[in-house]
Amino acid sequence: MAKSKYALGLDFGTNSVRALLVDVSDGEEIATHVWDYRRGEAGVIIDIKDPHLARQHPQDYLDGISSAVAGALENAAGRKGFSPKDVIGIGVDTTGSTPIPVDASGLPLAFDKNFKANPNALAWLWKDHTGYAEAEDITAAAARLRPQYLAKCGGKYSSEWFWSKILHCLRVAPAVFDAAYTWVECADWIPAVLTGTTAPNALKRCVCAAGHKAMFNPSWKGYPDDEFLGSVDERLVRVRRKLPEKAYTIADSAGGLTPDWAIKLDLPQGIPVAVGAFDAHLGGVGSGIEPGTLVKIVGTSTCDMMVWPLDKPLADIPGLCGIVPGSILPDAYGLEAGQSAVGDIFNWYVNYVAPGGPELGSHEALTKAAERLKPGQSGLIGLDWHNGNRTVLVDQRLTGLLLGITLHTTPAEIYRALIESTAFGARIIAERFEEYGMNVKRVVNCGGIAAKNPLVMGIYADVIGKPMEISRSAQTCALGAAVAGAVVAGARAGGYADFHGAMKAMTGVQKKKYLPKPENVKTYDRLYGLYHRLHDAFGTRGYSENLYDVMKTLLAIRDEARG
Amino acid sequence: MAKSKYALGLDFGTNSVRALLVDVSDGEEIATHVWDYRRGEAGVIIDIKDPHLARQHPQDYLDGISSAVAGALENAAGRKGFSPKDVIGIGVDTTGSTPIPVDASGLPLAFDKNFKANPNALAWLWKDHTGYAEAEDITAAAARLRPQYLAKCGGKYSSEWFWSKILHCLRVAPAVFDAAYTWVECADWIPAVLTGTTAPNALKRCVCAAGHKAMFNPSWKGYPDDEFLGSVDERLVRVRRKLPEKAYTIADSAGGLTPDWAIKLDLPQGIPVAVGAFDAHLGGVGSGIEPGTLVKIVGTSTCDMMVWPLDKPLADIPGLCGIVPGSILPDAYGLEAGQSAVGDIFNWYVNYVAPGGPELGSHEALTKAAERLKPGQSGLIGLDWHNGNRTVLVDQRLTGLLLGITLHTTPAEIYRALIESTAFGARIIAERFEEYGMNVKRVVNCGGIAAKNPLVMGIYADVIGKPMEISRSAQTCALGAAVAGAVVAGARAGGYADFHGAMKAMTGVQKKKYLPKPENVKTYDRLYGLYHRLHDAFGTRGYSENLYDVMKTLLAIRDEARG
Repeated sequence: MAKSKYALGLDFGTNSVRALLVDVSDGEEIATHVWDYRRGEAGVIIDIKDPHLARQHPQDYLDGISSAVAGALENAAGRKGFSPKDVIGIGVDTTGSTPIPVDASGLPLAFDKNFKANPNALAWLWKDHTGYAEAEDITAAAARLRPQYLAKCGGKYSSEWFWSKILHCLRVAPAVFDAAYTWVECADWIPAVLTGTTAPNALKRCVCAAGHKAMFNPSWKGYPDDEFLGSVDERLVRVRRKLPEKAYTIADSAGGLTPDWAIKLDLPQGIPVAVGAFDAHLGGVGSGIEPGTLVKIVGTSTCDMMVWPLDKPLADIPGLCGIVPGSILPDAYGLEAGQSAVGDIFNWYVNYVAPGGPELGSHEALTKAAERLKPGQSGLIGLDWHNGNRTVLVDQRLTGLLLGITLHTTPAEIYRALIESTAFGARIIAERFEEYGMNVKRVVNCGGIAAKNPLVMGIYADVIGKPMEISRSAQTCALGAAVAGAVVAGARAGGYADFHGAMKAMTGVQKKKYLPKPENVKTYDRLYGLYHRLHDAFGTRGYSENLYDVMKTLLAIRDEARG
Repeated sequence: MAKSKYALGLDFGTNSVRALLVDVSDGEEIATHVWDYRRGEAGVIIDIKDPHLARQHPQDYLDGISSAVAGALENAAGRKGFSPKDVIGIGVDTTGSTPIPVDASGLPLAFDKNFKANPNALAWLWKDHTGYAEAEDITAAAARLRPQYLAKCGGKYSSEWFWSKILHCLRVAPAVFDAAYTWVECADWIPAVLTGTTAPNALKRCVCAAGHKAMFNPSWKGYPDDEFLGSVDERLVRVRRKLPEKAYTIADSAGGLTPDWAIKLDLPQGIPVAVGAFDAHLGGVGSGIEPGTLVKIVGTSTCDMMVWPLDKPLADIPGLCGIVPGSILPDAYGLEAGQSAVGDIFNWYVNYVAPGGPELGSHEALTKAAERLKPGQSGLIGLDWHNGNRTVLVDQRLTGLLLGITLHTTPAEIYRALIESTAFGARIIAERFEEYGMNVKRVVNCGGIAAKNPLVMGIYADVIGKPMEISRSAQTCALGAAVAGAVVAGARAGGYADFHGAMKAMTGVQKKKYLPKPENVKTYDRLYGLYHRLHDAFGTRGYSENLYDVMKTLLAIRDEARG
C-alpha cells in the first residue's frame, strides 16, 4: 500500500482562518486548526458611525496563515505515518468580493505608513456596503450602455462587489485611490503571497472573483471595457488598464510554495498552490457539486451554488449573483446565488434583542421551545432582509419585517418565524433556478448551521419541499480548497488529474437526510404564498395588489394549526 | 367656613378596584386605596388554548368594594376633620363592555353551583374577543338591514361588545345562555348592588354602555329591534324583550346606599349612588372634558373621548366606537374612539420578549436608551395592532407589524418604534375627529402612561403636532366617578347642581405641558405618511399602491437623522 499523501486547505473566513489537512485518498480530515483574527471586532474593523463599513487588515491574513498551519501540523503530529513532507498541494478559499488596494510592488497600502490609520487602505470585506450609491450608478450605466453585463450578474450590480468598492474609495478617499497601483482580491492575494507572485504583472487572478464580482466574462473579452467604465468615472479606466486579459480556474497553479514560506510553515518547498476561489465556490467542490445538485452553504449568510455543463445552453437568470464559466468547476458554468443574512439574523436576535434574558434567550433554549411549535401556529411571518437581499432582488436597501405580532407572541415564536423567513428566502432561490431550466434534483447543505441545527434543516426541508442532505465534512470550504490542492498536485504526485475524480474520492454526504413532512409542506406552501406577496410588495416596483387579506389569512392558518 | 363634604369614586379596572375620596369643594384627593383582584392572572381568567378569552369573577367585584373602600377610609382617617359621615355621594365606573349573565333575581350565574366551573357564566371582560365571528355576523346583518345602527358605531360592530358576546355564548354554551334571565353590564351591576336594585325590573341601565356597546339609541327608540336581532339568531329576541326602553345618564341616581352596605362600608345609609359609566367616559369627566377637548386615557389601551353639544349638527363618523347622546355628559353627545393596545404593547415587549435580560430590559432602562434616539434614527416603523384595531378600522383580526429591522437594530430602537407606532395610531384618531368637523383645540391626557411617561407624551406631542396637557389627577376615572357622586348628591347636600360646575371646581390640568418640537414634527410627518400607507395597505380593502419605496424612504430618513 502506497504511503498516504495529503493536501492542505486554507479557508479565510470573516472572523478566522482555518487550515485543514486532508488525506487525498479518501478525504479523511486528519487535522485542523482555526486561528481567530486579532483586529477589530472578531476580525472586522467597523465604524460605529457607519453601519455599512466592514474592513480587514491584511496582516491578520499573514498571521493567520502561519498560525493556522502551525496549529494543524501540531494536531496532525500524533497521527501515525503523517509527515509534513507528504503534503503535496495547497488550495485557498477566501471571502469575497474583498478587494485590497496595493502598490506597484503588490504590497497592500495598509502596510504603507502614510495610510496606517486609514480604513480605506484596508481590505474591503465582502459585507462592506459603503458603496451602495456607487452600485446604483454602475447598474444604471450598465442598464444604459451594457445590458449584457447585467444579464450575467442578475440584473443589478451589488454594493458588495469590486467596482462599487473601488468607485466609492475614489469618491471618499481619493488619496488612497491615487496611491493604489491596482486592486487585488483577497482570493488572489493569498496564493500570490505563498508563491511569491504578488507583483501585479506576475499575479494570477481567479475567474471566480473576476467573473462573479468584477464583470469579467470571456464573451466580452474579460473585464468591462473602457468606454463603459469611463462613463461611470474616467478614473476607473486607469484601474481597468492594469487588469490582465486572462483569468484562471482552481485547476491552475498560482506557483510553487516559496522557500521562505516553506521554512515558515514547515512544508515542502515548491509544492503547488492552486489559484484561489471564494469560500462558497470551494464549499460547492467540498460538497461534491455536479449538475442537478444545489449546494447551500448555510452560515451567517448563505451561498447557493449550482453548476451547468459548458456545452449545454443556459439562459441568463435574473437576480443571480453571477453566471461564470469555470468559477466553481473548470469545465462548467458556476452559478452563485445567496441570502445576505441567515445565521446573522438568528445571532442578531439572540445577541442584540437578547429575548428572555441569558437563561431563556440562548440559541439552545429558543431552539428547544421553537421545535415544539407547529408550522403556522405562531401567526407570524417575516421578511429575512435584515442585511438586504442578495438574490433574487439584489438590493441592499431592503430591511427586515415581522408581521402577525400579538400580545401573546413569544420569543420562541419569533425565533421560529425568523428561521422560517430564511427558509422562504431559500425557496425563492431554488425556484428561480428551476424556473430557468436548472432542475434541483438534490440539495446538499454545508456550513455551520447545516451541521449543527436540525430545527433549521427540518424547516428548510418542509418549506422547500425537498430532502435536505448534509455534507459529510463540517469544514466543507476548507475541504474544497484541499481538493483543489490535490488536483493542482496532479496524479503523478499522488493527487488527481481532475476534479471529478478528486471529489468522488474526497467528498460525500451524511447518511442522515431531513425529509419533508407532507403535512408541514402543505401549511408552508400557504405561508410561502404570503411571503411571496410581501416579498414582491416591498421588494419590487411591479406589485400593486391589496394586502388586506394577509393578516387574516395568517390568523386563519394559526387558528387551524392550533386546532 | 362650611364643613368639607366628600364624594367617593369607585373605579373597577381590568386588574383592580380603586376607591377614591375627594373633597367636593376643590377636587382634592384626600385618600385612595387599590385592591387587586384575587382570581385568574391579575384578575383576568384566561384559557391558554384560546387567547381570545378573558373573563372575571363577580365575587372579585364584591370583595373589591369592601376592601378598597375600607382601605381608603383607613387612609383618610388621619385627615383632620374628615369623617365618613361627610361622604355625600358615590359614583362608579367600570370596564366595558363587560356583560354578566344573571338569573331572574339579578344574581350572576357565576354564583350558581351548576355553573361554578363554567367560564361562560363569568363576567365577559371588555377584552374578551371570543365573539369575533359573531361580531362579523352582526355587522353583516346590520349592513343589510339596519345601516343606521352601524353608522353610530363606526361602521362595524365589535367582538368586544354586548351582542357579540351574548351571541357567542348562545352558540358555544347554550346551557348558560338558557339559564340567563338577562345580561347586565358590570357598570350597571355595581351601582345596583350598592342600592339593592339588581332585580331586573328595578335595575337602571346606563346609556353609556347601552349606547356604545349594545346599539341603544333614542333615534330608533332604544335597543335594536326584534326583526334585526331575529335575523341574526331568533334566540336573541328573548334577550331583547327583557331589556328596558329607557337608559340613564350619570346625572341620575341608581338609588340610595342600602343599610347592609352602609354598615359594611361604614358610610351613611341612603346616600345616592350615581348610575354607572365606563371608566373612559368618567375619565373624560375627571379631565374636565368639553367641546373642543380631546381627552385621551392612555393606559394598557387608550380611549379617546370627545363631546359635542346636543343641539349642534353632527355627522356620523366612520370608525368611531360610538356616538351616543348623554354617554359622557348628560347634555352632550359622547364620542368614543380608542386603541386596543398601547401600554399592553410596551408591556408585551418588556415582559414577553424581555429584551436584553432583566437588567437592560426594564421599562426604565429602555426608556432611558430610547430617549437618546432622534425621530427616524432607527429606520423602524410599526403598526400598533398587537391587539387589533379599535379605531378607525374596528377590526380585531389585525396584528402588529415591525418593519425596517437590520442586524444593528437595538432593543431600545424597537421600544421607541413601538411607542411611535401607538402615537401614529393616536394621530389617525385625532385626524378622524377633525375630518368630521370636530376641531381638536386641546388634548388632555390622563391614565398611568400620561402621568408617568414623559418619553411617550413627548413623542405624542411631536407626532400629533399639538401640545399634550396632562390631567392634574393621577386617577382621573375615579375622580370622574367622584364628580358624578357629587352631582347626584346635589347642591343642597353640599355637592353640585350640574357637571359643569362640578368639573370646574373638582378637575384641572398640570402646569407642565409637552410642546411639539418643530424639527421632530417635520420628521414624524414623513414617517406618519409611511405609517398611513401601511395602515391602509394591511387594514383596508381599498389600497393597491406599490410599497417598494417604503423601506427606501425609511432608510433615507434614517440616514438623514444620523447625519
